[in-house]
Amino acid sequence: MNFNMNDIIYKKREGGELTAEEIKWWIDGYVRGEIPDYQVSALLMAIFFRGLSREETYMLTSAMRYSGDTVDLSSIRGIKVDKHSTGGVGDKTTLVVAPLASACGVPIAKMSGRGLGFTGGTVDKMESIPGFRTVLEPEEFMNQVNTVGMAVIGQSGHITPADKKLYALRDVTATVDNFGLIASSIMSKKLAAGSDAIVLDVKCGDGAFMENLEDAVTLADLMVDIGYDAGRRTVACITDMSQPLGKAVGNALEVIEAIDTLKGRGPEDITELSKKLAGIMIFLGGRADTPEQGYELAREALESGTGLTQMRLFIEAQGGDENVIYDYSLFPQAEYSEELKADRSGFVSEIRARQIGLASQKTGAGRETKEDEIDLSAGIILNKKVGDRVEEGEVLATFCGNDPKKVREGLEEARKAFEITDEEVSRPELIKEIIGL
Amino acid sequence: MNFNMNDIIYKKREGGELTAEEIKWWIDGYVRGEIPDYQVSALLMAIFFRGLSREETYMLTSAMRYSGDTVDLSSIRGIKVDKHSTGGVGDKTTLVVAPLASACGVPIAKMSGRGLGFTGGTVDKMESIPGFRTVLEPEEFMNQVNTVGMAVIGQSGHITPADKKLYALRDVTATVDNFGLIASSIMSKKLAAGSDAIVLDVKCGDGAFMENLEDAVTLADLMVDIGYDAGRRTVACITDMSQPLGKAVGNALEVIEAIDTLKGRGPEDITELSKKLAGIMIFLGGRADTPEQGYELAREALESGTGLTQMRLFIEAQGGDENVIYDYSLFPQAEYSEELKADRSGFVSEIRARQIGLASQKTGAGRETKEDEIDLSAGIILNKKVGDRVEEGEVLATFCGNDPKKVREGLEEARKAFEITDEEVSRPELIKEIIGL
Repeated sequence: MNFNMNDIIYKKREGGELTAEEIKWWIDGYVRGEIPDYQVSALLMAIFFRGLSREETYMLTSAMRYSGDTVDLSSIRGIKVDKHSTGGVGDKTTLVVAPLASACGVPIAKMSGRGLGFTGGTVDKMESIPGFRTVLEPEEFMNQVNTVGMAVIGQSGHITPADKKLYALRDVTATVDNFGLIASSIMSKKLAAGSDAIVLDVKCGDGAFMENLEDAVTLADLMVDIGYDAGRRTVACITDMSQPLGKAVGNALEVIEAIDTLKGRGPEDITELSKKLAGIMIFLGGRADTPEQGYELAREALESGTGLTQMRLFIEAQGGDENVIYDYSLFPQAEYSEELKADRSGFVSEIRARQIGLASQKTGAGRETKEDEIDLSAGIILNKKVGDRVEEGEVLATFCGNDPKKVREGLEEARKAFEITDEEVSRPELIKEIIGL
Repeated sequence: MNFNMNDIIYKKREGGELTAEEIKWWIDGYVRGEIPDYQVSALLMAIFFRGLSREETYMLTSAMRYSGDTVDLSSIRGIKVDKHSTGGVGDKTTLVVAPLASACGVPIAKMSGRGLGFTGGTVDKMESIPGFRTVLEPEEFMNQVNTVGMAVIGQSGHITPADKKLYALRDVTATVDNFGLIASSIMSKKLAAGSDAIVLDVKCGDGAFMENLEDAVTLADLMVDIGYDAGRRTVACITDMSQPLGKAVGNALEVIEAIDTLKGRGPEDITELSKKLAGIMIFLGGRADTPEQGYELAREALESGTGLTQMRLFIEAQGGDENVIYDYSLFPQAEYSEELKADRSGFVSEIRARQIGLASQKTGAGRETKEDEIDLSAGIILNKKVGDRVEEGEVLATFCGNDPKKVREGLEEARKAFEITDEEVSRPELIKEIIGL
């Protein structure tokens, strides 16, 4: 079928609904380089103003999903469950949730991204384990899931090229922040990655892309609908990102905290969220009759240490040094560290996640441009969380890395993140809403 | 000053008002090729949805006006008055109005375009006069206005390059039909062309870009405001384009009708409109104290034949054979003609201008693409106008040209343009509104 791109832009501009054929035509033409950027950016801006219907959002997702290679996980036994986070500060959940769910029999065949921003992505974090390989051949990947129960690799270059090209264009044409475009971007990658069910962790708050609950719910609803329309059971948890998750922000630091959590001595919030998300994954993976039963199984896996064992087997299978589990000195070590101390006594009422994220990036833990090298040892250890009592002069957080100037800059940036009040402060609600259960 | 184009797009998208510096920055950067099409098209679409304030519209016009060469008419004595039509079917007004105003002492130094569409533009029409040159050196052009009183040439390639580049982009990104963008496009060219005052003929109806009065008034108001802000007295007449203007549609055919009109035997509508527009030009040019007095002077110029003399001198000065004024056989002659006859008796209630325009293009009188050759002899002669009584079998219109197939296609296309009813029909109001007087 042949269409005219100007007519398609006009139709959307006037509030019309694009057909599946029209959407597939322009996405395919764009990937092939036959439709120029300037027509696509005009269409994206018209979409920004006119929105996308549920049908259009699904069709756009589907067109992007099939714009390149898709992963066929059919050689892996069982119901494969994927997990995705929209991104926040200190979010090492995947490294706890995947071993827990996998220890309960749910096959995890996960592709993860690298990160631009506050810290690296899951793939960057894993690379702080000496010897760990994040590139596996497809067959090796499938075999590992069948034998060990889980594998995590970097995203292949041939998955959803339409999304890559569109995202790069949106980034320079002020068309990033549209729900339909965000939802279809995320879900096209998840669907192309081949799992049978998807658990989404939609972060909400100052340190997340969705700053308020209403926006987070809108996005979560859209993604759950897309998953449903694609025949993939999808559940979204909306979780707090007003302060960082857990106490570690960085790369090696976050892997260490994930291992600590699997040992049963992690911070309360990351422990609770991991059990909750793993519980839903165990339920969706058919290993529990209810999410509550899934939660119980995740708790047992954590308390009995089978989750930790699973982590060790996984690290070993991907060539990493499994001794890191017992000897944290095997991780990249930061040469410098500095402490930020409280200038008054009281209760911690704010640890602004966004500000901590920026501080983490300054220490060297995150990239500003694709070419930047990450300092895997760098980052922040919080000593306090919101609601904690603090005395004047007590340490609020420690900043570390290999460049003393950057460590100092990180500390200065983080100063603005903290608020201390006289009144007692309640801890923020961790899980705000669950959609799709 | 340096800005970021993504920020500018975002600002407009969120309903903000762009500053003069921001507008100048992106227009200049776009012309220099430093800002890519894909960012400009996204901005244009945001402008489509958010609109432009009066201040922004003026600044955009100004930035485009100065994006290339501007014409300096200061060596021409007197108040130079320009005239522009937004385009319609059978619109040969310039060829009547310019000689009339010039005969009354208003210097006319006009640049006209070629046309894509129903017929050629004024420049194409003039080229149907044997020997007529539409390209003059600047000095020759100025001298001719000082000695003969008027000159009409084709638009130079170095005038308002920003408008050319933007228009080409708008044409393929569904962002043509926005009042602010249309107004600034027209006015940037008029201001760059250097006249001291401007009379705009805003066509309104089925055969025009503005199909209803409300839209025509909106556009006219915007253009009059831009002219005022630029210190150029600007008057807009909103005139009927529900049926073609006059009875001739084509190139040579329209020049002949213009000459006929200057001889006092033209159709009523073109005669009346020409006197009205010329009257306003004479007033703006300081040769009459009121537009009404200007009208009287134009009427006298027509009746006394000084307008016709002016036309003869003008044709001669630009190298054309001035004998065309008395011997129409010197114009390109059509080899074929066909007549469309009324299939019933009654009153002509509709001659849809747009349909007649399309028919004219089919006969060969207009271009579909820039590369098309125009058949200067081709076109349509209406035998009836709206309100006229017609008998069954009587000729409604004659179609002519050098390609019998095209002439036949034109006739078939035009069939749908005519409506005949039993009831008597009043003639449409010719001048609907005058803005800026």
